[in-house]
Amino acid sequence: MKRPKITIVGAGHVGTTTAHWCAAAELGDLVLVDTRNGGDIARGKALDLIHAAPIMRFDLSIIGSGSYEHTVDSDVVVITAGKPRTPGMSRDELLEVNAKIVAFASRQVRDTSPEAIVIVVTNPLDTMTQQALQTTGFPPHRVIGQAGLLDTARLRTYLAMELGVRVEDINAMLIGGHGDTMVPLTRCSSVGGIPVDQLIKPNRLKQVVQRTRDSGAELVSLMKTGASCAAGAATMRMIEAVIRDEKRLIPCSTYCDKEYGVGGYCVGVPVILGAQGVERIVEFDMTDEERAQFQKSVAATKRLVEKMTQLDLCSC
Amino acid sequence: MKRPKITIVGAGHVGTTTAHWCAAAELGDLVLVDTRNGGDIARGKALDLIHAAPIMRFDLSIIGSGSYEHTVDSDVVVITAGKPRTPGMSRDELLEVNAKIVAFASRQVRDTSPEAIVIVVTNPLDTMTQQALQTTGFPPHRVIGQAGLLDTARLRTYLAMELGVRVEDINAMLIGGHGDTMVPLTRCSSVGGIPVDQLIKPNRLKQVVQRTRDSGAELVSLMKTGASCAAGAATMRMIEAVIRDEKRLIPCSTYCDKEYGVGGYCVGVPVILGAQGVERIVEFDMTDEERAQFQKSVAATKRLVEKMTQLDLCSC
Amino acid sequence: MKRPKITIVGAGHVGTTTAHWCAAAELGDLVLVDTRNGGDIARGKALDLIHAAPIMRFDLSIIGSGSYEHTVDSDVVVITAGKPRTPGMSRDELLEVNAKIVAFASRQVRDTSPEAIVIVVTNPLDTMTQQALQTTGFPPHRVIGQAGLLDTARLRTYLAMELGVRVEDINAMLIGGHGDTMVPLTRCSSVGGIPVDQLIKPNRLKQVVQRTRDSGAELVSLMKTGASCAAGAATMRMIEAVIRDEKRLIPCSTYCDKEYGVGGYCVGVPVILGAQGVERIVEFDMTDEERAQFQKSVAATKRLVEKMTQLDLCSC
Amino acid sequence: MKRPKITIVGAGHVGTTTAHWCAAAELGDLVLVDTRNGGDIARGKALDLIHAAPIMRFDLSIIGSGSYEHTVDSDVVVITAGKPRTPGMSRDELLEVNAKIVAFASRQVRDTSPEAIVIVVTNPLDTMTQQALQTTGFPPHRVIGQAGLLDTARLRTYLAMELGVRVEDINAMLIGGHGDTMVPLTRCSSVGGIPVDQLIKPNRLKQVVQRTRDSGAELVSLMKTGASCAAGAATMRMIEAVIRDEKRLIPCSTYCDKEYGVGGYCVGVPVILGAQGVERIVEFDMTDEERAQFQKSVAATKRLVEKMTQLDLCSC
Repeated sequence: MKRPKITIVGAGHVGTTTAHWCAAAELGDLVLVDTRNGGDIARGKALDLIHAAPIMRFDLSIIGSGSYEHTVDSDVVVITAGKPRTPGMSRDELLEVNAKIVAFASRQVRDTSPEAIVIVVTNPLDTMTQQALQTTGFPPHRVIGQAGLLDTARLRTYLAMELGVRVEDINAMLIGGHGDTMVPLTRCSSVGGIPVDQLIKPNRLKQVVQRTRDSGAELVSLMKTGASCAAGAATMRMIEAVIRDEKRLIPCSTYCDKEYGVGGYCVGVPVILGAQGVERIVEFDMTDEERAQFQKSVAATKRLVEKMTQLDLCSC
Repeated sequence: MKRPKITIVGAGHVGTTTAHWCAAAELGDLVLVDTRNGGDIARGKALDLIHAAPIMRFDLSIIGSGSYEHTVDSDVVVITAGKPRTPGMSRDELLEVNAKIVAFASRQVRDTSPEAIVIVVTNPLDTMTQQALQTTGFPPHRVIGQAGLLDTARLRTYLAMELGVRVEDINAMLIGGHGDTMVPLTRCSSVGGIPVDQLIKPNRLKQVVQRTRDSGAELVSLMKTGASCAAGAATMRMIEAVIRDEKRLIPCSTYCDKEYGVGGYCVGVPVILGAQGVERIVEFDMTDEERAQFQKSVAATKRLVEKMTQLDLCSC
Repeated sequence: MKRPKITIVGAGHVGTTTAHWCAAAELGDLVLVDTRNGGDIARGKALDLIHAAPIMRFDLSIIGSGSYEHTVDSDVVVITAGKPRTPGMSRDELLEVNAKIVAFASRQVRDTSPEAIVIVVTNPLDTMTQQALQTTGFPPHRVIGQAGLLDTARLRTYLAMELGVRVEDINAMLIGGHGDTMVPLTRCSSVGGIPVDQLIKPNRLKQVVQRTRDSGAELVSLMKTGASCAAGAATMRMIEAVIRDEKRLIPCSTYCDKEYGVGGYCVGVPVILGAQGVERIVEFDMTDEERAQFQKSVAATKRLVEKMTQLDLCSC
Repeated sequence: MKRPKITIVGAGHVGTTTAHWCAAAELGDLVLVDTRNGGDIARGKALDLIHAAPIMRFDLSIIGSGSYEHTVDSDVVVITAGKPRTPGMSRDELLEVNAKIVAFASRQVRDTSPEAIVIVVTNPLDTMTQQALQTTGFPPHRVIGQAGLLDTARLRTYLAMELGVRVEDINAMLIGGHGDTMVPLTRCSSVGGIPVDQLIKPNRLKQVVQRTRDSGAELVSLMKTGASCAAGAATMRMIEAVIRDEKRLIPCSTYCDKEYGVGGYCVGVPVILGAQGVERIVEFDMTDEERAQFQKSVAATKRLVEKMTQLDLCSC
């Protein structure tokens, strides 16, 4: 019974919040890596979190560091490092700076934790997942992007508000890229099993979907920086699904080749997430409209990936 | 900030398990009432549960008693008292003996906790809910039968097994009486939002539904007595929905008059459950087949209620 | 990340309650073994518990069985099988019948899960732990008796009642056998760190200690059978300490040779409990009175062990 | 069963983290107040937290605002607003700027939630508690400073590291001001009830105490800003103790007049914390050395309070 070992790269808001939720759920020993200030930021965040242990009734080894030496042989590595969005900025504008950061982190992970499952959180999400997949050279089932769980959470939140019902009883599915082209599937959204379109009028439902799409931008505009609390929570649940071999069926960004006819790109689709990472991609019948939206979303990711291919990432 | 007060009538398996789950969730102070042995059984169960407090990290007042004096002004009262099924027995055969027990308990509740929300668990469930409703004279939204949450849990369990997916990601709905005529709605069952009939073949789905219907009998045949663990858990969640005003959308046995054309009987339908009890009955479009099954279920309940009307419950 | 595997031998009250708490804490996959009715009791209890999964939000493999084939290579095995006390009976009167049951179970465990940590709950506790230790032939750190955690919980409960303080803030230690000779150490009992004898008068403290000693008998007299809820909770925490490598410092029944001068018997002392089982026996200075009481307790255990040695356990 | 209402003033790191932990524990509906950017920061933080609800399985009303209108009739109000420490700065240097902020907030609380329990977190802690007490004019049992729970958590953390034991089994007490003059009581610190000085050598114990005292400064030096995670957790537990009427015995900053001979100042002492706030100050016998250290700590608080008295807080 060795305790699971989880490395979180990036001790910014998302990384720190992910660590909080992981510690509270006592998922395993944690290593926070952040190169800033020679590792002092990471060390400080780790120490602050350790002090919460007696109060929150967990107890783990939590290490902060500026380098990867303490991360050796991690079971799961989360990459959150990268610049966050600022107001008015799209996720895609972060491409160049974050591709370098993710490529650097991926090389470290490949060398220090060759058997790890990697979860990517850095934006633009699907492209960064592709970057981590290429740089680590890991099999596709071991490199996964977090987004669908966060995006469905937002959809469920707004559906719950609309219905005046506890959010726990809302189920929803959402596919495509983590961005303006995401495809919320209202047809696959229900409350206590009852399809939501039986209980919400079409124009209201449309507003709910649009607010879901714009949620990231809404938060950046309010807070002047990217959101972290729900993103950290979603990331924690993905780690949990791997660590506890949960076989959860949730949307994640994963490498699809023949699946859904994607042709070799990372994009959000429903998967079974367990100890092996993505254990299965779940295919289901889309309507023509859903398919059209999904293909638009894939096309957007393709363009970014091509742009990324032309970047010089060697120097990082 | 007065702590909520919860009374559980009946310290048998279901009552005791309900108390365990309530204590672990720290829902409120508990009173266990059981007239057997002058209250000693209830006192013993309460003391045993109190000893678990330091270990399970809860802390509540937990009182066992043979009478209702400690229950005065409870916020929620659960009635679990009654004979359990034995192998080969249907829930309906318990009618006479349990109607007397529930009528007695209901009179006590009416006199000691006139503002309480009452949750009935005793079988035959829908008829006993009707009994409690009549005897207390409480408004219908304050007398609710537990069954749908248990029955959907069984349906979800078997769907999860069939799909190899974590049960948390399965959503399901089920209506009608708690008995052989229950109506599992596979059309309103999904996994991660994807309708289950896209992923499970029709004949397998039929077997899943049948096993759900037979679950109670399967357990009685194995254990020689009624089940308690899941029933206690389901009851706890209903108490929680009331105490914490959760607005959960779940199936419960509730008095339907015009709703679904039931005409004045307690039967399982989707409701919003919150601080006021049943805050709303949620109506949705059924298919013709679903409607036919539901009416058959209502008819079965009607017959039992009529039979109960002819019983002499005065002497109890 | 293989999920931990936990076997619970005996699907009576304590075994079933242990399974409930383990499932709720999602500690690992569970196998319930009970030879009664060809395994049907165990199968029924397992199925009932599985139905609670969607409601309690856990998800595990839970198997009930009449034999040990499904238990192979368990990480932890709990032995709860045996006759419970009835009113007026001391724990020691169960010696002969339970020694046979524990010896049988221990041989099965030795053959099917040779690397398991074994936790014994059957009474008379310390003697049954010794029996399991001898029959399995496992190293002493892997065969541990549950009692101290339950007994200190009772002591803490009564101290909390006396002080009107949340039980979580009470700390207590207790050593010696699980029986009338247990040694509650009020000197090592504190509330928020403040020694309890600064806040409770000596004669009240004496009553608290006496009620702790008599708790088991008090429960049997009320319920006409042994307690299970708190015992199951205490057992769950020991499993958790092993599975999650928690390094908890708690009193357990463990084989002491030179430690505390016991001379080769299982008796309750403070230990560090982690992935290896008893990772260290913690020795501390006793007062003369404590030492005298502890030796009396050890002597009582010795007498029972000698009595057990003369039993013919071959036929079981 | 009205849901509890909790207001958190200040949506900086401590306020936001407090909100996270409160939401995860589902303590009640939350209002986050922060005047910055016309309330947008608070609105953004609230929205981000709401998105986590489906993932973390809570569901509450969470409102962010720039003003106090949504806070009306809160059950608990937490004041975290104020400037944090920067490296090299003592908590006391924040006196002037934070006294104004706390005075302003206290007036708002007095006018909008006249029955609330107020928990102060802003530094310098004991002085700010006194400020809130004076400005609100609330009775002393309803204005409480958070510090002791955090400081004992740090002490317990370092004791656990030293002993290689799960922190849950460490108990500790600490009195005096939240600053360099705090008084960790190693005499009242134990592991599983065993006094720590039986298991840790004196010079090591001295180092543990010193690191506890310097923890705040250590964190500021690493992170270049104040800590928030453990402080937020400690604050959440105090809110919980009030909301759930827990009667916890923990050290808090509270107004002591005759108690411990303090003479009318807020300082950290053990209290019983429940629905009424500080329900009782617990007095216990100190050693001469402890008393001397405590008096030094009280004297430091007195000096700051006098300094504060001379500030002109009218204009804020």
